[in-house]
Amino acid sequence: MREFSEARNWVQFHDPKSLVLALVGEVGELAELFQWLPADQAQALASDPKLKQRAGEEISDVFLYLLRLADELGIDLSQAANQKMSASEERFAISDVHGQAPLKS
Amino acid sequence: MREFSEARNWVQFHDPKSLVLALVGEVGELAELFQWLPADQAQALASDPKLKQRAGEEISDVFLYLLRLADELGIDLSQAANQKMSASEERFAISDVHGQAPLKS
Amino acid sequence: MREFSEARNWVQFHDPKSLVLALVGEVGELAELFQWLPADQAQALASDPKLKQRAGEEISDVFLYLLRLADELGIDLSQAANQKMSASEERFAISDVHGQAPLKS
Amino acid sequence: MREFSEARNWVQFHDPKSLVLALVGEVGELAELFQWLPADQAQALASDPKLKQRAGEEISDVFLYLLRLADELGIDLSQAANQKMSASEERFAISDVHGQAPLKS
Repeated sequence: MREFSEARNWVQFHDPKSLVLALVGEVGELAELFQWLPADQAQALASDPKLKQRAGEEISDVFLYLLRLADELGIDLSQAANQKMSASEERFAISDVHGQAPLKS
Repeated sequence: MREFSEARNWVQFHDPKSLVLALVGEVGELAELFQWLPADQAQALASDPKLKQRAGEEISDVFLYLLRLADELGIDLSQAANQKMSASEERFAISDVHGQAPLKS
Repeated sequence: MREFSEARNWVQFHDPKSLVLALVGEVGELAELFQWLPADQAQALASDPKLKQRAGEEISDVFLYLLRLADELGIDLSQAANQKMSASEERFAISDVHGQAPLKS
Repeated sequence: MREFSEARNWVQFHDPKSLVLALVGEVGELAELFQWLPADQAQALASDPKLKQRAGEEISDVFLYLLRLADELGIDLSQAANQKMSASEERFAISDVHGQAPLKS
């Protein structure tokens, strides 16, 4: 994403607020794929190749802007995500939360 | 994330619509970090260790739900993102778009 | 909202991008209220006074930033919404769409 | 919105989670209008009739789903928003917060 953006001279547009808005745009497209599907049919989406393809594209769009944002902020996404997982494993002890709807993190 | 969720018996809550809503919640927290900062100060965020730490956590939260969603849908995020990059490289030829604000993808 | 913001000298922060990010933050809080509820229990939310109160507050937060954004852009929300409804009534003729999941508008 | 939805037999799709996702889709379209504009040019949007028209439509889309959601939950949006404003006026005393970036509400 960094190379892609530099090659097109697009890094000038990639301040954090603009990147978050772009990410929101892609999250909106992801939401639209699922919005009117009954919850159980949304699950079945995975077996429809055409919808799965589109879901993969929208998820990727969100991911790529997220990666671009992390890069602009000097954040190593892989490292940050691993730290967050470790913190969550400690915070939500299995014996405390098993089978209960997770509290918002 | 899959192991973490299975160990807590949380996969039962992870239908696509619920995961997208959870992701939206985390995107909201990410947006709140930047909302009132002047655009140029948002850029400077990277040099403030405390804000960078929080940004890393919120970006990770979005990423982890995105990964969980991809997993539930049977999507290989790494593969999907690489395909999307290749498609974008073709769609936005450097000679056509250099230095112009990218069209929404 | 305009008077409230002017009295606090907050209009200086209310450029459109910042207001959309603030709105996204509130949408995130609204999403969190519903994210882990089974679809049918989300419907029952209306009968739980405490949850209904919180939903009303989050919906109001989204609405108030939306109103502030419209005001900053010189848009009369009431007039714009009525125009949109008229356009949708024409676009989605009852005989064409009755009982079918609406296309995204 | 209620009459419009009932006439098309669309209320069946309007459980809270689906409506929030639809709202997220419209917020995404609103974000896309502004994402790559420099903050100062976003402000100037109001003077471009074509962009103002589009912004009015996207703001209306968000508003109409918000209204539909409030209606489904039995919430009087006008009353809830007025209550929220009163609470904010008390919470953010002018003498305390004048000219300081508002805390997230």
